Amino acid sequence: METFELTIDELRARQGTKWTRYPAHILPVWVADMDFRAPEPVQAAILRLVERSDYGYGPLGARDSLAAVFADRMQERYGWAADPQLVLPISELIQAMYATLIAYSAPGEGAVLQTPIYPPFLMAIEQTGRRLVDNPLRDDGTRYALDIDGLRRVVDAGTRLLFLCNPHNPTGRVFERAELLALGELAVERDLVIVADEIHQDLVYPGHRHIPIASLGPEIAARTITLTSATKGFNIAGLRCALMHFGSPALKERFHRVFPERLLGAVNTIGLEATIAAWRHGQPWLEAVLRRLHANRDRVTAFLAAELPEITYYPPEGTYLAWLDCRRLALPGSPYEFFLDQAGVAFGDGAAFGEHGRGCVRLNFATAPDILDQVLTRTAEAVKRARLSRV
Amino acid sequence: METFELTIDELRARQGTKWTRYPAHILPVWVADMDFRAPEPVQAAILRLVERSDYGYGPLGARDSLAAVFADRMQERYGWAADPQLVLPISELIQAMYATLIAYSAPGEGAVLQTPIYPPFLMAIEQTGRRLVDNPLRDDGTRYALDIDGLRRVVDAGTRLLFLCNPHNPTGRVFERAELLALGELAVERDLVIVADEIHQDLVYPGHRHIPIASLGPEIAARTITLTSATKGFNIAGLRCALMHFGSPALKERFHRVFPERLLGAVNTIGLEATIAAWRHGQPWLEAVLRRLHANRDRVTAFLAAELPEITYYPPEGTYLAWLDCRRLALPGSPYEFFLDQAGVAFGDGAAFGEHGRGCVRLNFATAPDILDQVLTRTAEAVKRARLSRV
Repeated sequence: METFELTIDELRARQGTKWTRYPAHILPVWVADMDFRAPEPVQAAILRLVERSDYGYGPLGARDSLAAVFADRMQERYGWAADPQLVLPISELIQAMYATLIAYSAPGEGAVLQTPIYPPFLMAIEQTGRRLVDNPLRDDGTRYALDIDGLRRVVDAGTRLLFLCNPHNPTGRVFERAELLALGELAVERDLVIVADEIHQDLVYPGHRHIPIASLGPEIAARTITLTSATKGFNIAGLRCALMHFGSPALKERFHRVFPERLLGAVNTIGLEATIAAWRHGQPWLEAVLRRLHANRDRVTAFLAAELPEITYYPPEGTYLAWLDCRRLALPGSPYEFFLDQAGVAFGDGAAFGEHGRGCVRLNFATAPDILDQVLTRTAEAVKRARLSRV
Repeated sequence: METFELTIDELRARQGTKWTRYPAHILPVWVADMDFRAPEPVQAAILRLVERSDYGYGPLGARDSLAAVFADRMQERYGWAADPQLVLPISELIQAMYATLIAYSAPGEGAVLQTPIYPPFLMAIEQTGRRLVDNPLRDDGTRYALDIDGLRRVVDAGTRLLFLCNPHNPTGRVFERAELLALGELAVERDLVIVADEIHQDLVYPGHRHIPIASLGPEIAARTITLTSATKGFNIAGLRCALMHFGSPALKERFHRVFPERLLGAVNTIGLEATIAAWRHGQPWLEAVLRRLHANRDRVTAFLAAELPEITYYPPEGTYLAWLDCRRLALPGSPYEFFLDQAGVAFGDGAAFGEHGRGCVRLNFATAPDILDQVLTRTAEAVKRARLSRV
């Protein structure tokens, strides 16, 4: 098996934001990069370009290859017949959040989010002058569930879009068929466009299965735009290659009436070739990485149960993100600030994930076991010290 | 001096479109890539990322660094005080053509082009439903001149944008101060937004000087959006990193009222770091490449004068592009098709450059001298054979 783990010195030598944003005494478990090397076939594809100084305009067929490899992968892994003709390469998913809001709704119209949620969804709604239709996930004591009754209540006549994030960032939920079907049927009933961020589809643990919402039948598919990328699963976010898949030609035409294709930019050759290589040849790497992530997740689960039972936490079904609801810890101020100052750990700040994220932090556990252990130990010790000082 | 030349076998081993679009017996002198290696500092910057598998989210300050390096370079080379705060990184210039048309004009309103012109300008106007206001360059018997009187006549009350391409693609003109000033003053008088594609600014021959139109004073600057990139000068088009510079905060605000920043996508880390390295450390390479291009240009000039005097051709003042007006050759059909079939040479097809490009081809002479000689010889021989068969 190829090795993918990096030492802390190797990580600190990287230029990326994850390991450079905070001073050296802080352990960074915030932004959603993995502390792992990219797959060898990705590295080989990049080196083929680098060795030949092959940085000119890329091969004419690269976009078609990307679309074909994507469609093959969707068929093979999820039995979903995505149409390569309905693929639009873009640089990243955030771009598509803005673009779909503008293409499918007018200022003031509503877009549904299941909060807490990946912050760019919130930014996109705010910056485009659309209206947040908040449908918070429901903590049912065993997991964060899609609240379909709540959804039925909040969707009003001015709601146009339903954003879905599945697997869900930050809670790690991998929604079940019944939940997705209820959501899809409501979208049909209320004539909503579904924009599904499925970027974490590769990162799902045993016992759960990713279901592309567009695979649930033609009526749902026809109103669904699926957003995905190899960047999460294969750890190449900086290479900026993603795609939109439109569930029907009509939906794509509607989009292009607002956005001519070239307006959204061109994807760079290295990102394209890396993505194609990852999807074609990266599976052995992905499976090895998933075993590591699975073990890390279980380590987090066991540690929190034993040492920090006041934190509300449901083991993620997918993603390498753990959502820690720290409100019962009754820490002074925001838990993000507390752990940054008192534990030397930089979590993701829950407050950025919407109103319902206050009092929570997001832990990225895609790192080496020894680093994860330090993060957990420092976190628990900071809580203990805070308790002692309160007594 | 570092070597940058590549052999024909090395070129054929590349994956890029220039050397893969046509069969192997065709010599490709079409798309604007150079047949040269990228500068060593660019290669080093890319390898720093590749060796560490550093493909995650890039350093937070990379966009600021890009803007700062750009502004420093503009000051140093052109005495132009560009403002790093008014820079917006984008993936490529074509994206900005579409975006500026949409941001600064309404459907049906006019945008001026100096034709013949780089085809994406024409596509952008057509696909956004704007109106081409054609102000052809005037062949004055010594060069292609900006037709200011013509411009005055064609600009009507519904004209909103004035596109400038300087150095000009495909004619290689590097416009003089007087021409640019007349253009800028007319833009002020008629309240036009100037969108200046200055991507070829690095590629100017002795005796000529690139003048950024935004450097001509505050009144012109305030209505000018400058588009540029290191991709042409340093031969890294596939890495997709470019920028827009707005000549005033008001102009930038107007743009962002239509396009939230993230809508246009994120620039990939490799493209960003390569661009910063090129602008900071690529100058020795650029100067060596310019000497090669200069010699190639003079070779083209001498050859055409001796062997193909019926081709109307003015030695380009900048760019590595030669615009060959073949109409006096009276070839059967399009010269592009003729030379492709009869000479085994793939020029750029002049017809794509607008109505005034019919009967012309664009020659990219950024290649090794022996390849250039073959291109020229094959071209002349095909013309001779056609003449003989007509006799």
